Amino acid sequence: MFEFQTIYNVLDLAGTFAFAISGAIAAKQRGLDMFGIGAIAFTVACGGGIIRDLCIGAIPPVGLYDWRYLATAMLAALMTMGLYSWVKRLHQPVLLFDTLGLSLFAVSGSYKALLYNHNAEVAILLGMMTAVGGGVLRDVLLNRIPVIFRKEIYASAALVGSIVVVVGEYFKWPNTIVSLTAITLCFSLRFFALRYHWNLPVFKGEESDTVKGSGEG
Amino acid sequence: MFEFQTIYNVLDLAGTFAFAISGAIAAKQRGLDMFGIGAIAFTVACGGGIIRDLCIGAIPPVGLYDWRYLATAMLAALMTMGLYSWVKRLHQPVLLFDTLGLSLFAVSGSYKALLYNHNAEVAILLGMMTAVGGGVLRDVLLNRIPVIFRKEIYASAALVGSIVVVVGEYFKWPNTIVSLTAITLCFSLRFFALRYHWNLPVFKGEESDTVKGSGEG
Amino acid sequence: MFEFQTIYNVLDLAGTFAFAISGAIAAKQRGLDMFGIGAIAFTVACGGGIIRDLCIGAIPPVGLYDWRYLATAMLAALMTMGLYSWVKRLHQPVLLFDTLGLSLFAVSGSYKALLYNHNAEVAILLGMMTAVGGGVLRDVLLNRIPVIFRKEIYASAALVGSIVVVVGEYFKWPNTIVSLTAITLCFSLRFFALRYHWNLPVFKGEESDTVKGSGEG
Repeated sequence: MFEFQTIYNVLDLAGTFAFAISGAIAAKQRGLDMFGIGAIAFTVACGGGIIRDLCIGAIPPVGLYDWRYLATAMLAALMTMGLYSWVKRLHQPVLLFDTLGLSLFAVSGSYKALLYNHNAEVAILLGMMTAVGGGVLRDVLLNRIPVIFRKEIYASAALVGSIVVVVGEYFKWPNTIVSLTAITLCFSLRFFALRYHWNLPVFKGEESDTVKGSGEG
Repeated sequence: MFEFQTIYNVLDLAGTFAFAISGAIAAKQRGLDMFGIGAIAFTVACGGGIIRDLCIGAIPPVGLYDWRYLATAMLAALMTMGLYSWVKRLHQPVLLFDTLGLSLFAVSGSYKALLYNHNAEVAILLGMMTAVGGGVLRDVLLNRIPVIFRKEIYASAALVGSIVVVVGEYFKWPNTIVSLTAITLCFSLRFFALRYHWNLPVFKGEESDTVKGSGEG
Repeated sequence: MFEFQTIYNVLDLAGTFAFAISGAIAAKQRGLDMFGIGAIAFTVACGGGIIRDLCIGAIPPVGLYDWRYLATAMLAALMTMGLYSWVKRLHQPVLLFDTLGLSLFAVSGSYKALLYNHNAEVAILLGMMTAVGGGVLRDVLLNRIPVIFRKEIYASAALVGSIVVVVGEYFKWPNTIVSLTAITLCFSLRFFALRYHWNLPVFKGEESDTVKGSGEG
């Protein structure tokens, strides 16, 4: 139980940092002001976790009462604003941060749902929700179709990570090994999907509308 | 109490199936990938119920822990993808499915709120929310103004269904009769509104912006 | 404790009225029907409070079970629809209503979180959320980038109001004085920001996209 809690904490704060950076960059590219950048960074970093906490009954959501989450997100936002000319040269590292956040949150989200004694389905769905929820909120707030619905394998990678955690806990395999396996698998899936443009099938019919996308993403 | 629970379960799963089909079709028309179609189908089918459950304190939301909801939504999504060329010829039946989902969810949502001992206002507002919430989430995620705010009588039909349930329970009329009356009334209102293009008054002033709608819906 | 509760109630209903008017006007300008206007008015007025209540564990949210909130919002919506030709000449008063709602909700939201024994961070974040949440939902439903992310000081004014409440409660200063100070400060900040076009810095980089704004707001 103790080890469980520690692993969950470390993964969750690391994921918060990674996602806050990706949120701050997206907000900056849209020309939002300082407050907007901070708010979007916090939303991307903590939004998925807040939805998860509401659904599992962890009141108040950890992102709202534990100062470390807010501090981590603000630090990431300030770093992004301060070092933007440096950050913008790092296209690849930014995607890596996002991929890292995705993997860490899928795993930490599933662990937390299990910690609150919910069943496998809740742990899998909310692990995935923790991982993708912040990004969906970001896209809704920035007024575009959430990128996860139309891009390379993304939520599906989180799904795989969450399933590994739930299966590992079911068979009572050691937490550290299960976490590392789940993170590695989720990260690799997303990484190679980006690199080789793997996509899920689209089934475009003749009368499909084309998505009025926003150009970015 | 037992009868209550059974009625609620049957209505709720039937509504889930009907709404998942309408969600899958909308997602497919926007050109989303397989995961996107499944996710939107699940969101439309279970989103309203999840918001209702969070508001009445039913933690975790039934859409997340009861496998029958996920299975029903996925079955509907797969059927829609597999039989799309067949489904697209069924314009009218699709609207019927949506209307059926609306009626079933308005009634089951109100029953569930009463089952959790909430008052009439909560039961009416959340019955309506169960019925229209999934569709609102679908439209927000697909980046358009929710259709319920600008089309033929829709949420108002759900409102009528929810009120019938609450009034019926207040006078302790038999559940089966109350449910059937509420469903029939809601269904008919929406059906005839579609057929004869009934709309609520708009009060267009001279400086009203026209809605920058998305063409579909 | 009693005084606390009374102050909270009065501020909260006054804020509900102010925000419902601003919501009804926005919905009317977009050409929504009667139901849409009522629904958006209620959402702007009660949406932020409902999110706050879910996060602090106040189930069901007060906006859903206390008829005074619904009645206040509907009254404001009807007034707006009935007296629209009169209201539209009042550009300045409308902004004043919105600014009043912002100040009242920032203060009442923070008080309520403290009343439920949450810590300072929760009270500050959720005070701000109560104040801006309804407006964010309005903009998301009307399909535009939330105005708070790109306009004159808005959420930051609410933040200041919430901080004053939390600091005042920490030092156990009298509730009435703390509330009045917080409301005055928040109101003045927003008022002068509007009047003199104060904005937070934007840090526009050379590759910033320009925001595809909606023209209004």
